[in-house]
Amino acid sequence: MSDAFKVLGVEHVGLAPKDVEGLRSFFETALMLPPEGEELVPSQQTQTYFYPSGGAYTRLEILAPAEGKGPIAKFLASRGGGIHHIALEVDNLANALACLKAKGIQLIDEKARKGAHGSKVAFIHPHASGGILIELVEKKDRR
Amino acid sequence: MSDAFKVLGVEHVGLAPKDVEGLRSFFETALMLPPEGEELVPSQQTQTYFYPSGGAYTRLEILAPAEGKGPIAKFLASRGGGIHHIALEVDNLANALACLKAKGIQLIDEKARKGAHGSKVAFIHPHASGGILIELVEKKDRR
Repeated sequence: MSDAFKVLGVEHVGLAPKDVEGLRSFFETALMLPPEGEELVPSQQTQTYFYPSGGAYTRLEILAPAEGKGPIAKFLASRGGGIHHIALEVDNLANALACLKAKGIQLIDEKARKGAHGSKVAFIHPHASGGILIELVEKKDRR
Repeated sequence: MSDAFKVLGVEHVGLAPKDVEGLRSFFETALMLPPEGEELVPSQQTQTYFYPSGGAYTRLEILAPAEGKGPIAKFLASRGGGIHHIALEVDNLANALACLKAKGIQLIDEKARKGAHGSKVAFIHPHASGGILIELVEKKDRR
């Protein structure tokens, strides 16, 4: 199959807590996870704080609405906070999107867009995945 | 510090979709993730389906209420489904619980209890972590 792709792992888990400072403090002072950095993602109106999960591959991303708007603000208003999405790394995002589309999977992003750290990302519509929001990521520096 | 502990990584992500079969089908036929097995966890009244996340460490666990009862049934009723919790592997769960308690962190389980695959598990109270439900796991065969 020319548009084959492979899932490589859980690249990050996106957390949209009702209490951002509470979760940051828990990670830093209770679990002793050092903050790795933060990034404003203007296209998502989202402020992101990155944490490593121990020495391992998967990152923990805390998501906060920038200026009270955007998808995280909506999620907080409708759900009261929680775990927002999981991001799966794939080896080739363009192939993955073509392959999923050919299988009739509903996509939020039919084309890859720019994510954090120079990655390419696309979201699958939760209707296609039992109501769970899943992001696909192709990293600049592949795992 | 005698009760020191270390977070080793995201052992699994617990998914409680409103449509269990929809998510299982998405994993198996769209993402081509082979099912790894399933387990009934009577203490949690929960049926669990395990999937690998590519070749990588973190597992994806789909959680469904057994006989319509238990914490997952409650989560579905109150939240309409979603991502239920993240599980962080620690090197020593007893030390972790002692250390967190000493720091005043509110715990759901003050003592470890039996999890899937012969592991020891304990949940932290979401009040302590910004509203996000976090499980700690000590595996039988450590990472």
